[in-house]
Amino acid sequence: MDKHQITESFREVQEYICSKLEDIDGKAEFNADLWSREEGGGGRTNTIQDGAIIEKGGVAFSEVFGSVSNQMSKQLKLEGESFFATGVSIVIHSKAIHHPIIHMNIRYFEMDEGVYWFGGGIDLTPIYVNESLAECFHLRLKELCDQYDSSMYERFKKWADEYFYLSHRKESRGIGGVFFDHFSENGVLTKEQIFQFCIDLGKLFPELYGEQISKAVALKEMNQEWQLLRRSRYVEFNLLHDRGTKFGIYSGGRTESILLSMPPEAKWVYNYQEEENTLEYQTQQILKSNRSWITP
Amino acid sequence: MDKHQITESFREVQEYICSKLEDIDGKAEFNADLWSREEGGGGRTNTIQDGAIIEKGGVAFSEVFGSVSNQMSKQLKLEGESFFATGVSIVIHSKAIHHPIIHMNIRYFEMDEGVYWFGGGIDLTPIYVNESLAECFHLRLKELCDQYDSSMYERFKKWADEYFYLSHRKESRGIGGVFFDHFSENGVLTKEQIFQFCIDLGKLFPELYGEQISKAVALKEMNQEWQLLRRSRYVEFNLLHDRGTKFGIYSGGRTESILLSMPPEAKWVYNYQEEENTLEYQTQQILKSNRSWITP
Repeated sequence: MDKHQITESFREVQEYICSKLEDIDGKAEFNADLWSREEGGGGRTNTIQDGAIIEKGGVAFSEVFGSVSNQMSKQLKLEGESFFATGVSIVIHSKAIHHPIIHMNIRYFEMDEGVYWFGGGIDLTPIYVNESLAECFHLRLKELCDQYDSSMYERFKKWADEYFYLSHRKESRGIGGVFFDHFSENGVLTKEQIFQFCIDLGKLFPELYGEQISKAVALKEMNQEWQLLRRSRYVEFNLLHDRGTKFGIYSGGRTESILLSMPPEAKWVYNYQEEENTLEYQTQQILKSNRSWITP
Repeated sequence: MDKHQITESFREVQEYICSKLEDIDGKAEFNADLWSREEGGGGRTNTIQDGAIIEKGGVAFSEVFGSVSNQMSKQLKLEGESFFATGVSIVIHSKAIHHPIIHMNIRYFEMDEGVYWFGGGIDLTPIYVNESLAECFHLRLKELCDQYDSSMYERFKKWADEYFYLSHRKESRGIGGVFFDHFSENGVLTKEQIFQFCIDLGKLFPELYGEQISKAVALKEMNQEWQLLRRSRYVEFNLLHDRGTKFGIYSGGRTESILLSMPPEAKWVYNYQEEENTLEYQTQQILKSNRSWITP
């Protein structure tokens, strides 16, 4: 289980996901951009747009390595001289108001002298929260986690709640999911098992998205402006808080691949207030609460 | 020249600017929101929207003080136990494609034991660069700087070029202007003179904006999508790089006032490439170069 095997498997996960997403969309296809990084490594950025379901999305694979720059050690607090990082990162902005934004990331990091860790997560950002679909999403993630360690879902769900939180808005960016970082063999799981969990998580992604799409319900009270406002919160999260974005920017990554996560369009209204008893208000209340989506 | 006098003058600058901007717009008026900060201080956020000229804009005054939190000392590298900060901050997003985005800020900062400094700047972000209007903008700034210190314009112009730079895009957010920070009595200027320079700069703002608006030329080749794309770069700058935004967010400021700078709408297109020999291409070339706008 060395970095090359992990890299190869991540590459395959990218291909698998893109093929499944094309099936779900039924119209648009991915375009691939190959790029290389001067200091070492490169990647393949697959993008899709103007589909039947997907308005703008990307599935990015990268493998970057080299020496830890001053900016990286300062901004990312990396201790060590050289690093290796590989990962698959996805954001899909759906076209319809009743379809969610969805994100997935799996990554592997290796530093000097055999120090390594995995990280990753999946989270869902519905424009309007459908509570039964949110529960369904969490149930599927719990099922997967439970195959590895029965305490994992609770921990990673909580981690996602903390991570995908817009502190400056005092609200969550969506209904969460799972998030983990610095995950390495721990007495419960071996490196191989953690790796396998990441692969499973990656492969679960298109299933989860497909399920959210096929079960989504459009309501006539839903409105387009709300979608653009939710998207602007997504922008704020990614540019102000997201560690992956920061890592990419500070490690001299490819900007277009890092900012693949940006929505096609977004809107900001000063001091927007949702009217009570509207779907927007209900959604906002949920995003300001902290739910355990699965009833025990 | 104590902090209370400075605060009062900044308050007056806000009023002056809002009244002048209403004259320029001719249709929309400012709305005021008063807010207070739990840890000390507060502000008045004046916003304007859907005007004849101005699509979305804000002129924010604030006066905040209190003890330096862990997050502030860590993220903002402030040394000392307590701080006092007051300032006026403006961003105007114009409606028409041939009208620019414009920004101005003046601020005063005081730490323990009489340590203080002023900071500020004005910069212009045209959607399409009109070279003679860019020169005109810089000439006016130079005229003002020269009244205080003949070496100031060059230094502050360079500082603006460095500050308003999107390193991840390798381009400037606009045609620059002036920027300065940690400005205190230096053997050339007294505290009082620096304060007066800040007030003059604030009062120059509506004149500069009015001039850019009245002399702007609409061309039929200009297109709306380009405006939305330039606005997304503005979002990237403010959320990824801008120190004022970071200071606001990390010092527990009022989010709606800090993010006043966000455009009404923005658009992201993966790997957008301007076609050669278009106005967009010309603008992009200018933003990727580093010009001295004033011919000596």
